[in-house]
Amino acid sequence: MDRVLYPRSVAVIGASANPAKTGHIILKNIIDAGYKGEIYPINPKGGEILGLKVYRSVLEVPGEIDLAVVVVPARVVPSVMEEIGRKGIPGAVIISGGFGEAGEEGARLEEEVGKIARQYNVRVIGPNCQGVNNTNIGLCASWPLIKENGPMTIVSQSGTVGAAFEGWAAEEGYGISFFVGLGNRLDVDETDLLSFFVRDEKTKVVAMYIEGVKRGPEFRRVLEENGGRKPIVILKSGRSPSGARAVQSHTRSLAGRDEVFTGLFRQYGVVRAETVEELYDFSKALAFVRPPSGPRVMIVSSSGGSAIISVDMVEGLGMELAQLPEWAKEELRARIPPYCIVSNPLDLTGDADAERYDRVLDVLKDVEGIDTIVTIFGDPIPGAAEVLEKYMDSGKTVIAVYIGGGEVQAEEVRKMGKRGIPVFPTPERAIKALKVVMDRASWLKRRYG
Amino acid sequence: MDRVLYPRSVAVIGASANPAKTGHIILKNIIDAGYKGEIYPINPKGGEILGLKVYRSVLEVPGEIDLAVVVVPARVVPSVMEEIGRKGIPGAVIISGGFGEAGEEGARLEEEVGKIARQYNVRVIGPNCQGVNNTNIGLCASWPLIKENGPMTIVSQSGTVGAAFEGWAAEEGYGISFFVGLGNRLDVDETDLLSFFVRDEKTKVVAMYIEGVKRGPEFRRVLEENGGRKPIVILKSGRSPSGARAVQSHTRSLAGRDEVFTGLFRQYGVVRAETVEELYDFSKALAFVRPPSGPRVMIVSSSGGSAIISVDMVEGLGMELAQLPEWAKEELRARIPPYCIVSNPLDLTGDADAERYDRVLDVLKDVEGIDTIVTIFGDPIPGAAEVLEKYMDSGKTVIAVYIGGGEVQAEEVRKMGKRGIPVFPTPERAIKALKVVMDRASWLKRRYG
Repeated sequence: MDRVLYPRSVAVIGASANPAKTGHIILKNIIDAGYKGEIYPINPKGGEILGLKVYRSVLEVPGEIDLAVVVVPARVVPSVMEEIGRKGIPGAVIISGGFGEAGEEGARLEEEVGKIARQYNVRVIGPNCQGVNNTNIGLCASWPLIKENGPMTIVSQSGTVGAAFEGWAAEEGYGISFFVGLGNRLDVDETDLLSFFVRDEKTKVVAMYIEGVKRGPEFRRVLEENGGRKPIVILKSGRSPSGARAVQSHTRSLAGRDEVFTGLFRQYGVVRAETVEELYDFSKALAFVRPPSGPRVMIVSSSGGSAIISVDMVEGLGMELAQLPEWAKEELRARIPPYCIVSNPLDLTGDADAERYDRVLDVLKDVEGIDTIVTIFGDPIPGAAEVLEKYMDSGKTVIAVYIGGGEVQAEEVRKMGKRGIPVFPTPERAIKALKVVMDRASWLKRRYG
Repeated sequence: MDRVLYPRSVAVIGASANPAKTGHIILKNIIDAGYKGEIYPINPKGGEILGLKVYRSVLEVPGEIDLAVVVVPARVVPSVMEEIGRKGIPGAVIISGGFGEAGEEGARLEEEVGKIARQYNVRVIGPNCQGVNNTNIGLCASWPLIKENGPMTIVSQSGTVGAAFEGWAAEEGYGISFFVGLGNRLDVDETDLLSFFVRDEKTKVVAMYIEGVKRGPEFRRVLEENGGRKPIVILKSGRSPSGARAVQSHTRSLAGRDEVFTGLFRQYGVVRAETVEELYDFSKALAFVRPPSGPRVMIVSSSGGSAIISVDMVEGLGMELAQLPEWAKEELRARIPPYCIVSNPLDLTGDADAERYDRVLDVLKDVEGIDTIVTIFGDPIPGAAEVLEKYMDSGKTVIAVYIGGGEVQAEEVRKMGKRGIPVFPTPERAIKALKVVMDRASWLKRRYG
């Protein structure tokens, strides 16, 4: 799998000169993402596409090929797979649809492709999938074009859920490590990829959207071996009776009894997301939020309302507000305007600038009774990212909310993302994500002491 | 209150030539929002700001003034209020902070200002608030500059929550009718504003963020009189013990027992939001989603995964999947590619374009057994807004999800917003909002038959 997911050379079979075609978009995305390995466009017409020489078949390519990306019509895929096998290519990503998901004839084709692949020992991702994006090597054999590199990997049974995840991660500057679309799982399935990514050094968190699990016992074994060490967040759909029926029609897999997944996830420290946004939020938190040493939360905000919403969340989720010692209160009073009342939550009021946060965090970083500092920027406050960055290694958990800040907010959030500072768009989402990180820390402690 | 909130002329007391000052930003926003009434900048220095003649005092202004927006330092506000009173101005919005929220001296100042205002019968919004934005007349006496006009009004105890709401509404093209920041509620409070906006013709939905209610019996009376006729969505914080304490320090009001609010809201058909995002989602839904005639939901999607997530939500929230009659199945089969399996959810697959949705909706609009059609665009599909618009008056409830569509999505969502088509960023948020609309319809039916 290493050669397949970190290929040194790629063939795009079905590369097209027509910008509207997937075979063009994929080739262009690989080039634009900055892939440094060899790229071989394949098309029986030959010629040149996007400045690259086109080969009529992979068999004509002089060098070795590690990965074949297949975007030809379904009926041509068996013969293409034959050539892939004969060329000795170890892996193929079949993006083309028209297989098992499309009825009897497609299912027959899929079986045929599988037989050929097994014969030549080709690992196959897909068919009917949104491809693979490995930003670590600039290989976006997928769409949309996402280049931002980061520690989160998303494996998804749904191209759309994967694309939404990638889109959010790119927009906020966090980036992703990998996106892999599962598609029909002719060969490579969720278990193979989970097993690969819990070991992959570039991946700090594995996020998954799945509708079912093909090989239950093997899946369990991977979770057991991981033992919660690498964070895994899973959104599992098909929970309702009609949802389970729809799963069967979508990916021909069994949704399985939901309680079984709940039990499995609990046993092996997998974080379960209930929504697509939670899948992203929780993954981001597990990748970027330093696990807090305890439940004591300090809230610093320019928005009194957002602070109170956070307090409700903190208490509602079983965490607690930190108590400020006298020395800290005095020191804070000396550093902020007299109209800011020193307490927890600490309301720096609407005229707070980044410097006021800095002066306050400089005191709070030394308060022993605080485990986590939630900093809420509830206005367009420039320079927020720079200030927070100074406190990320202070030994305390620092997490941010940026809300109601318009264009300044978009810019500051992107800066925070690029620097690995965890920031969330609402107080509720931030505190919920913090709780997930805290619960995981407790789980690990109970398990490993 | 009508003259105050729909003023024909406005004075900005404390208007400043310095672009960094609130007194400049407010004046500029009023001008840039396209306000057509008279604008009088007031500053003892005189001169000209942003092309407008500056008066030294409201007493020097020749014409009538309906609203005074006050942005001078707190200590000057009493004398300014005296002049406002003598000029016979019926309303003032005091944006300046430094009053009750800032300690004893501020509280004394606030009392003094209140006394003068009462003496002259001036209605006062604030102090310490984020102002008033009435997009119906282009009066943005607030920040950020939001001009997009729409049917949702947001009244907020927190400037940040209000600004976040406005920001989302502007970004998605829905716009807002009013934003009013409550601030310290020296005079005008949540009850006054609720009472005004349930009667305001431009407001179709009243959204509120509150931390407490100053005049409980009057608030109840307004809710009772409204009798659930105009939709009201409330996010009420200060639910936890520490949250309630923080409320007292933030706005010197009592959070009140949460069960009391729960009971009150239930009795009078108020929708309770649990998060800032729900406050926006539910308001949007109540403003734009046509109440469904029943619980039967049809799901049409280009993303199989998003469809299954929606099915789980539909069943989980007690709605049901519509059954397609034979004639409709046949008609659909004739109109979409053979690899799309005709069922509910209807997966149009990843290569669906807007036209395929059109062909399908054209059949579904005539199926009696469908109450709501949830259309999910799970890819960058241009033209989605145009297609949906055709079916908004079909007699069925039509609601959209747009996810994973990058820049095309941003553009299509804005188009949908401008046309009043309800669209949500994830399946979960859409179905939850749909449920709110459905529950409200049932409530009204039980209540009024």
